[in-house]
Amino acid sequence: MTPINSESWLLLKRTARFGDTDAAGVMHFYQLFRWSHEAWEQSLESYGIPAKNIFPVYSANNQEQISVALPIVHCEANFFLPIETGDELIVQLFPKKIDLGSFEIEIRFKRQNTDVARCLLRHLAINADSRSRCVLPEQIDLWLEASSVKLGIKPV
Amino acid sequence: MTPINSESWLLLKRTARFGDTDAAGVMHFYQLFRWSHEAWEQSLESYGIPAKNIFPVYSANNQEQISVALPIVHCEANFFLPIETGDELIVQLFPKKIDLGSFEIEIRFKRQNTDVARCLLRHLAINADSRSRCVLPEQIDLWLEASSVKLGIKPV
Amino acid sequence: MTPINSESWLLLKRTARFGDTDAAGVMHFYQLFRWSHEAWEQSLESYGIPAKNIFPVYSANNQEQISVALPIVHCEANFFLPIETGDELIVQLFPKKIDLGSFEIEIRFKRQNTDVARCLLRHLAINADSRSRCVLPEQIDLWLEASSVKLGIKPV
Amino acid sequence: MTPINSESWLLLKRTARFGDTDAAGVMHFYQLFRWSHEAWEQSLESYGIPAKNIFPVYSANNQEQISVALPIVHCEANFFLPIETGDELIVQLFPKKIDLGSFEIEIRFKRQNTDVARCLLRHLAINADSRSRCVLPEQIDLWLEASSVKLGIKPV
Repeated sequence: MTPINSESWLLLKRTARFGDTDAAGVMHFYQLFRWSHEAWEQSLESYGIPAKNIFPVYSANNQEQISVALPIVHCEANFFLPIETGDELIVQLFPKKIDLGSFEIEIRFKRQNTDVARCLLRHLAINADSRSRCVLPEQIDLWLEASSVKLGIKPV
Repeated sequence: MTPINSESWLLLKRTARFGDTDAAGVMHFYQLFRWSHEAWEQSLESYGIPAKNIFPVYSANNQEQISVALPIVHCEANFFLPIETGDELIVQLFPKKIDLGSFEIEIRFKRQNTDVARCLLRHLAINADSRSRCVLPEQIDLWLEASSVKLGIKPV
Repeated sequence: MTPINSESWLLLKRTARFGDTDAAGVMHFYQLFRWSHEAWEQSLESYGIPAKNIFPVYSANNQEQISVALPIVHCEANFFLPIETGDELIVQLFPKKIDLGSFEIEIRFKRQNTDVARCLLRHLAINADSRSRCVLPEQIDLWLEASSVKLGIKPV
Repeated sequence: MTPINSESWLLLKRTARFGDTDAAGVMHFYQLFRWSHEAWEQSLESYGIPAKNIFPVYSANNQEQISVALPIVHCEANFFLPIETGDELIVQLFPKKIDLGSFEIEIRFKRQNTDVARCLLRHLAINADSRSRCVLPEQIDLWLEASSVKLGIKPV
């Protein structure tokens, strides 16, 4: 999962690997969710947000622990064409803020301008300790706003 | 993934394992799709359909190859509560025929009578060589019909 | 991964699933490590050790956190024969204490009395906070001793 | 998994992702094997060998099927330090021909010049239909020879 160029944090590329396939010879369906989550992580990183600001690290470093977790509460995928080992895919992210405490990302996978699959990830912000709902982390808000500007979508 | 009892091919149980979790300490979201697909495979097996009748095996055995593939064209999941290592889950399948060439399965995961997650897998029957749409394999039809009777649902 | 019978915590069975395979039509190699770790978890559970005593749970429950982690420092596998979707395997565990702070488990996979693969997992006990070496948790020691008695191996 | 630069097919980089971790907060051990296999695939691709020349694709394209499979017969890994979400790793490959029909690859993972893990994958060439041993595909031989020259190792 790598950015297409240095200015792009919403347009990535990825190559399907042998371990992503099953005995039908094509990508096993749920690998798309792994690819999609990794695309989100790469997008944050390319935009300038370090992983350790958003994702928890091991418990010994308690002082550095994140205070907001962003679990996925809903996800879905549509598969249009089979994906084979070695296929080079263009991965485009369409993030959207839903409300103060949640957002979703549509991720479209293309092979040579043809849609092969789409995925949707919906995240909810919760307090990492109490697990009650809270507002999104500020950095996620900035990334969502910048993404909506870049995509020409009016922010919420 | 094991049947609750010998008469049941739609009610299974499963224990969450350490490798299913992520650094947030709970099941990583897309593992639910793996569990759901394995629940479907276990259901077919418990009903009496050998895996080799439905899933492809390695290419040397060309004479034994299945003629119909059943790729997933859509799937989705909802997550209600976090699942931890060691959690014992009840897994209930609700298969439903959509039309002559497709079906879907809702899979509900409970922990001590509380819903923790739900998954939906939608499968399409295609000719394994031409990849054009075709009717469902007869054994899948029988499993769908028996399931709808067991669940008290009127068959299509 | 289920025990063969209620008295056995070192003899399990497992069915290979479609998602475990790759485009060569057989089990993708590293799934064996997942199966082996799950076999160890099932063995502890069948012996009577709850998962939450050995594996970390999410960070909100700080008061319940385990104090000793058991990371794998070395592992290896040998593959003798291809494994296909639906194959029913017998999984036998051979745990062995190495010293006060480490142990290893050999896990042998058989199909109808034929060896198909073997795996070795070597675990080290470390303090979960400081990450320095420490002695094995008492429950792991009991499981190792009981296993060596059952296998007719002289304890260390 | 991307090359460090355009001339390098044995020196790659990779970022650890959230889905690679477990509830202990660090990379779950067997992910290293996935990373290592993907490093090999990336190495072949960067050297100029298309994936479809080495790995099987779905069975409908029988005319294009590869004739030699390269299953892993042995693999092992050593883990020196925990790896966390967001860690940027340098991945170095050391391929070595064993004999006419087998080779192995050592893969070293470093973080800021410190070794964090090592992996070894040993592959055997077999006829994809008969599954009997055979000589390595010519392209793999070329890649092995070029690698040994680049690494300053005398070829076999």
